[in-house]
Amino acid sequence: MRAALLFSAGKDSTLAGLLLEDFYDVTLVTASFGVVGPEPAREAAEALGFPHETVALDPDVAREAVERMHDDGYPRNGIQQVHEHAVERVAEGEWTDGLDAVADGTRRDDRVPTIERPFAQSVEDRFDVDYLAPLAGIGRGAIDDMAADELVVETGPSAEIPKADYEVELRALLVDEYGDGAVAEVFPDHTQSRVRGRR
Amino acid sequence: MRAALLFSAGKDSTLAGLLLEDFYDVTLVTASFGVVGPEPAREAAEALGFPHETVALDPDVAREAVERMHDDGYPRNGIQQVHEHAVERVAEGEWTDGLDAVADGTRRDDRVPTIERPFAQSVEDRFDVDYLAPLAGIGRGAIDDMAADELVVETGPSAEIPKADYEVELRALLVDEYGDGAVAEVFPDHTQSRVRGRR
Repeated sequence: MRAALLFSAGKDSTLAGLLLEDFYDVTLVTASFGVVGPEPAREAAEALGFPHETVALDPDVAREAVERMHDDGYPRNGIQQVHEHAVERVAEGEWTDGLDAVADGTRRDDRVPTIERPFAQSVEDRFDVDYLAPLAGIGRGAIDDMAADELVVETGPSAEIPKADYEVELRALLVDEYGDGAVAEVFPDHTQSRVRGRR
Repeated sequence: MRAALLFSAGKDSTLAGLLLEDFYDVTLVTASFGVVGPEPAREAAEALGFPHETVALDPDVAREAVERMHDDGYPRNGIQQVHEHAVERVAEGEWTDGLDAVADGTRRDDRVPTIERPFAQSVEDRFDVDYLAPLAGIGRGAIDDMAADELVVETGPSAEIPKADYEVELRALLVDEYGDGAVAEVFPDHTQSRVRGRR
């Protein structure tokens, strides 16, 4: 069976891939608005031994999300909107002949992004694929332990870890649209992880 | 790391074990009121190559659950109550020196049993273990596909598949307390699966 996993080069999406690889031929897919290059994700995928693809996200979705995050003063709703769009774009599977499942690294303890059961079932119905969230029933502590055992991970402040996910792009678009201060206002400081390979 | 997985010999708990086995030393644990023997679960665990243990559930919890199911006319609340008790009993880990995690086979598309995040975190806090539900983000279709690829499974009406889980015991206790008709009234017919081994 073939699964496409939304991949940011972070700890969570990588661990989701490791959980699924005994059951599916997993392709890591980085969804991008074309603002930053996919190289960090491609490098990580190669180090992990998974094939890697990119899919293009709709720039209109980015514009809407950035405006929403700025108006809200926090990123939650904008990120959720972009994540749902990314799942749908991957599920369409334009880059492949056939796909049994689309997957992501959403976790039990995250507020966003999160995929509720109705959205999952809607994706399954509309795109005729299964939607898999192998970390949805696993907490932060266990994920950290599993990653420490299996992965070489680099961590640091979001701004200093080169990643290739849509969150990096949304930050860049916020700066373009509203200036440097907007990012600090909307995104509270938080630590990012970037996977360098398997242990 | 060591994980104890609530095990009924069914497809779901088996698949949960397969998802976790690359990350944890998994022991399959059958929780029992002592009404039926654990042999079917022990046999299945052996065929799968996992160590197997049993833990005793509190008969008072069974009595309360059976009364509740009979009063309700459906099994949902009684089963949920027993499942939460079983997770707590396994998390106590009396049969072992140290446990990093307790796990079960609860699935995204089940109405019961289901472990909500507050209960999961309460278990983690009270027993100092992680709680893992590797199928919580996976739908019925994908679970069926994964099981078909990996497992030899026998399926049939609940009454005819020898299993060793607390649901079988609750049925027997319902008959004892309220007569043969009570089971048909409370439990709608549904198909059970019993795992015979790996493919």
